[in-house]
Amino acid sequence: MRVPLERKVLNENDRIAATLRERFKSNGVFCLNLISSPGSGKTSLLERTLEGFGPERRLAVLTGDIQTDNDARRLAHFGFPVRQITTGGACHLDARMVERALEGWPVEDLEILFLENVGNLVCPTSYDLGEEARAVLLSVTEGEDKPLKYPATFHHADLMVLNKIDLLPYVPFSAEVAKENARRVQPDIEILDVSCTTGEGLDRWRAWLDGHL
Amino acid sequence: MRVPLERKVLNENDRIAATLRERFKSNGVFCLNLISSPGSGKTSLLERTLEGFGPERRLAVLTGDIQTDNDARRLAHFGFPVRQITTGGACHLDARMVERALEGWPVEDLEILFLENVGNLVCPTSYDLGEEARAVLLSVTEGEDKPLKYPATFHHADLMVLNKIDLLPYVPFSAEVAKENARRVQPDIEILDVSCTTGEGLDRWRAWLDGHL
Repeated sequence: MRVPLERKVLNENDRIAATLRERFKSNGVFCLNLISSPGSGKTSLLERTLEGFGPERRLAVLTGDIQTDNDARRLAHFGFPVRQITTGGACHLDARMVERALEGWPVEDLEILFLENVGNLVCPTSYDLGEEARAVLLSVTEGEDKPLKYPATFHHADLMVLNKIDLLPYVPFSAEVAKENARRVQPDIEILDVSCTTGEGLDRWRAWLDGHL
Repeated sequence: MRVPLERKVLNENDRIAATLRERFKSNGVFCLNLISSPGSGKTSLLERTLEGFGPERRLAVLTGDIQTDNDARRLAHFGFPVRQITTGGACHLDARMVERALEGWPVEDLEILFLENVGNLVCPTSYDLGEEARAVLLSVTEGEDKPLKYPATFHHADLMVLNKIDLLPYVPFSAEVAKENARRVQPDIEILDVSCTTGEGLDRWRAWLDGHL
């Protein structure tokens, strides 16, 4: 009984996601879905991204959390449009939440729309949000084996952002092993090393974004 | 349509969990459900725990992951019974998985049974596994606001283990703010600071466990 219902929910999600994707595509909006564990640094990466691009850039963020609007408040400082989606218990964003949050927004004017998913390395993977690309963040404090333990999330990602590389001297973590593991589940995955604390690698991250415009 | 089905699944889970709880209780087994984000250090804490207790202690671990038996292999080194539950996609353990994994095990002889949940700060909260207590791990690299963003998980926990305190000098994290946030969602929560790298606080953790026997 459970499987057909899940399929129905996902089919409905896919239908809305397809409409969103068409809307982004026809307006030249690069939409990126950011997925990671809680605390891997999605919001910090977005803070540094908004800060690093000039105010002339047309960027916006939808940020998802189960509770609180902390992230929207953190991101609002940079002057770009930001909206919080509070899921109220749901462990992932879905396409309908995105569609609703975009109501009244001039999506057509954007270059890049960031979708910061709920912190969860499992469930967001199953929900297409109409994005053009997916980035999974892994921080060096989480262990090298995460791509093997959460293979679906890494398999469906275009980019892995290896974050918090400033902490490498203090943790038992081999970046090479982590990258090998990511490539085992997704041979075509691109990988960027960054630190939102020191700023290392953020130029390459901005170049990666601009390469998709 | 969705809510009644979820309720049915959870009712079925609660029924099995109640049977497990009765079985643990009548045999004097302290069963602890460990919940955290991926990479917060559940397996490292269990490694140090098994290592720290002598081989005369009657401990066992069921460890849950979506894929791989890495954790069971890591924990098997210490000579205690360990079994891996590979959920194959499910984002949490449920009571039936625990019931099945215990088949043929002399549960009656145990002092402590550790249930290491799938790395996920959201979904495991909804599934009673028959445990006597729940511990949520938070590592200092994850940010102080996690109890507010994932309130259900902290609200239902008896203990918060604040892990990786050896990294405090290198991260922008206030342990006091994190603890205040945890107490805002669960005023009665106990809190232990530990580092599985330096061993700091592990004596208090073992004493906490022994206090439940």
